[in-house]
Amino acid sequence: MKPDPHPGATPIDELVTANRILAREGVIDSFGHVSMRDPADPRRFLLSRSRAPQQVEPRDIMRFALDGSVVGDDAAKPYAERFIHAAIYERRPEVLSVVHTHSPSVVPFTVVSRRMRPIMHMCAPIGSDIPCWDIRHRFGDTNLLVTRLEIGHDLADALGERNVALMRGHGCVVTGRSLREAVFTAVYMEVNAAMLTQALALAEGPEDIVYLSEGEIEAISKGRSSFGIDRAWENWCLRANRPFFAQV
Amino acid sequence: MKPDPHPGATPIDELVTANRILAREGVIDSFGHVSMRDPADPRRFLLSRSRAPQQVEPRDIMRFALDGSVVGDDAAKPYAERFIHAAIYERRPEVLSVVHTHSPSVVPFTVVSRRMRPIMHMCAPIGSDIPCWDIRHRFGDTNLLVTRLEIGHDLADALGERNVALMRGHGCVVTGRSLREAVFTAVYMEVNAAMLTQALALAEGPEDIVYLSEGEIEAISKGRSSFGIDRAWENWCLRANRPFFAQV
Amino acid sequence: MKPDPHPGATPIDELVTANRILAREGVIDSFGHVSMRDPADPRRFLLSRSRAPQQVEPRDIMRFALDGSVVGDDAAKPYAERFIHAAIYERRPEVLSVVHTHSPSVVPFTVVSRRMRPIMHMCAPIGSDIPCWDIRHRFGDTNLLVTRLEIGHDLADALGERNVALMRGHGCVVTGRSLREAVFTAVYMEVNAAMLTQALALAEGPEDIVYLSEGEIEAISKGRSSFGIDRAWENWCLRANRPFFAQV
Amino acid sequence: MKPDPHPGATPIDELVTANRILAREGVIDSFGHVSMRDPADPRRFLLSRSRAPQQVEPRDIMRFALDGSVVGDDAAKPYAERFIHAAIYERRPEVLSVVHTHSPSVVPFTVVSRRMRPIMHMCAPIGSDIPCWDIRHRFGDTNLLVTRLEIGHDLADALGERNVALMRGHGCVVTGRSLREAVFTAVYMEVNAAMLTQALALAEGPEDIVYLSEGEIEAISKGRSSFGIDRAWENWCLRANRPFFAQV
Repeated sequence: MKPDPHPGATPIDELVTANRILAREGVIDSFGHVSMRDPADPRRFLLSRSRAPQQVEPRDIMRFALDGSVVGDDAAKPYAERFIHAAIYERRPEVLSVVHTHSPSVVPFTVVSRRMRPIMHMCAPIGSDIPCWDIRHRFGDTNLLVTRLEIGHDLADALGERNVALMRGHGCVVTGRSLREAVFTAVYMEVNAAMLTQALALAEGPEDIVYLSEGEIEAISKGRSSFGIDRAWENWCLRANRPFFAQV
Repeated sequence: MKPDPHPGATPIDELVTANRILAREGVIDSFGHVSMRDPADPRRFLLSRSRAPQQVEPRDIMRFALDGSVVGDDAAKPYAERFIHAAIYERRPEVLSVVHTHSPSVVPFTVVSRRMRPIMHMCAPIGSDIPCWDIRHRFGDTNLLVTRLEIGHDLADALGERNVALMRGHGCVVTGRSLREAVFTAVYMEVNAAMLTQALALAEGPEDIVYLSEGEIEAISKGRSSFGIDRAWENWCLRANRPFFAQV
Repeated sequence: MKPDPHPGATPIDELVTANRILAREGVIDSFGHVSMRDPADPRRFLLSRSRAPQQVEPRDIMRFALDGSVVGDDAAKPYAERFIHAAIYERRPEVLSVVHTHSPSVVPFTVVSRRMRPIMHMCAPIGSDIPCWDIRHRFGDTNLLVTRLEIGHDLADALGERNVALMRGHGCVVTGRSLREAVFTAVYMEVNAAMLTQALALAEGPEDIVYLSEGEIEAISKGRSSFGIDRAWENWCLRANRPFFAQV
Repeated sequence: MKPDPHPGATPIDELVTANRILAREGVIDSFGHVSMRDPADPRRFLLSRSRAPQQVEPRDIMRFALDGSVVGDDAAKPYAERFIHAAIYERRPEVLSVVHTHSPSVVPFTVVSRRMRPIMHMCAPIGSDIPCWDIRHRFGDTNLLVTRLEIGHDLADALGERNVALMRGHGCVVTGRSLREAVFTAVYMEVNAAMLTQALALAEGPEDIVYLSEGEIEAISKGRSSFGIDRAWENWCLRANRPFFAQV
């Protein structure tokens, strides 16, 4: 693992901040969750107990293995859907953070044939090829929850090497090479969904939209730091009444 | 009756909390109301005097019989529409809570032929067969208010055994087997209405929507606790500045 | 004049409260204004100096004659559009309050051929025959402001005996037989505009909307107190951090 | 330069206030920026270091030359896109303030063929001929950022003598003959975009919209003070918890 990039903030503090930011910025309501790979052990990940993200505190953070089992003797009740996180961390070693949301402007895209694609530069990290995973294809009529590792693996297969995937009738999953990056992508995925919905209403037809080109998405991805993830993070911390620690 | 499931909170406290939550989460404005069946006597129900839900306090809670008459010598002015609640409690013994709203994204569905159906798992409790009751069919031109028991019975007939019913040009009624369940369903009915409106705007036509299947709705209904009504309730309590009591 | 219906609150206090409510409830931004006929002299009306309604204080309230001229030696700068109010008070003796807004969901209706009509019971006071006054018809290319009594009279002519009128490319004017009624109608005109816009998006065509019938609008107008203007007023006062005084 | 029109407020205080207002009124999120020409030297302009506008403080304000280079030995990290401001100040001597936003209702207009035009009087300053600059036309696939003076000049060429220009897949740039005017135009450009989007949804077709006429736009521009930029500025200051200084 790389040295802790946030001196002064423990990983648990940063994860609590991520929970509060996602609630404050309207990306999650009482449900949805955010995790990070354990900086001390890449075979573990950190995730709150079953609690609304707006209420998460440091003592709520639990440690899980990559099969979704609780590490240690923590008796708290975990999220039923921790297998979303477990399966992706197992499949994707470079992923250091996973966000799962029911983001309000994103969910409508999960039940229609219209594809989501980025139209604004800030939203380039969602990529132009966003799969929509449907639990029904393999598991039939369920409660739509990813409550077993097997279902998580199916979702991870659909996600592949991409940053994000939609989940039909449910929401989406977002990954990042850091906690801040995953939160950033989750926020701007909601922004893109809302803006694209409005653009489609204005357009003369689906062809009357200028999406970001593949070359633009690549150019943005190469130099993503120039978009100032930390500039947004500082702003979100202060809006959520959380301390901000500058990245090293 | 079952033992009080919320030790530490009186039923009246819980009902006040429900009022505040519905206001805080944008499901009701100055109008609309929420009641619960009296845990001490199933032939009675508890409901605020005529007051905006955001302002309701414990002393505002009144007790009513199932014909809508005030129990005791409470001189406060009751809601004119208490007959919505009375009629449903009379007809449906398993219903322990009723919510009536003018929920902003729900009202438009009451005046068009397009049917509301759930598209997201959290919204499954609204069911796939949602009737739209029109006071005009039986009572002609009125002020649209359910101000008599006879009108309440007509609405209860339209509702039947379902969890929710729309009211044309007015709003909706939501029932629950507990106070928290009714509030949960009312909140996610608004969420579903807003998301479905956006999905229909994105779809190539009304057939281009994947609704929850009957099997999915059934699977979700069987295990509804897995969706964490209490997780949402805790979050909503703290957002509304009300104490939270864990369910037994 | 009738005796003061709000013992404890002076007319000026009530008018300040009306300003704050309209801002708090999102009906006006930095512009728009609300006036009341002077209870002490029906040939006078009370209106703030030129100031954003959210900031209006008792000392900002000025007194005007029905030609829009300032009464007394008040040196404050009046709203340029006080002639909206002056002309309507002159033409309509029963009107005791006038609101002018650029309400966000209402303005779009002023520039299209689609007519606004009420779809929800609370919105019945706007009436089913809402004219759209266009300053251009008589005055040609202007800055669209009602800055002279002559323009105000033209607007008052278009309004006629109705409660509300749209103003093309500008906003609307709302009248009431009391201050609270005018504010109530202005708030629910915005609610109706937003809901009708959503309903039209859901409808299969403009004919697929069930509007309130003439008989329903009449039934509601006759018994409007049953809709609880004071219930809303108390709620809005507390939300805007203003004292509430019960109506006599 | 004219004498300081805001006695009591330094230019830097006013610029901090402008940053806070744009964030508070929802025109910018963590990104976007606002600058003013240095009242002490028209070959210089003032702009925050790279920081979210909601967090900008007086010590964050830097001074730049018209080629985008930092003046003095300020070691803070500047915005990568300061060249937007530099190029416009160089080309347009009468421009005293520049705002760059990713305004949520404006971005959708940058990716469709439908043109934005003003429909409400307050929005007249955006003008009826709003160009949409596309960085791709001259620079091919980029990260869409204006990170060099050459790109800024291309944008300034597209802007020409107008008040505003759209930036494809990115946002917009707004100019003003004063700081307050630029902020005002940026706020009402968002208002117009949101209202026009709704109007187009209501219209029977794109021809069914009454836009402001050229004569109206001209009439409004001539007497813009009558729209009360300072009335809005006072309101926005108090909403953003910033001191207000009356204009001389």
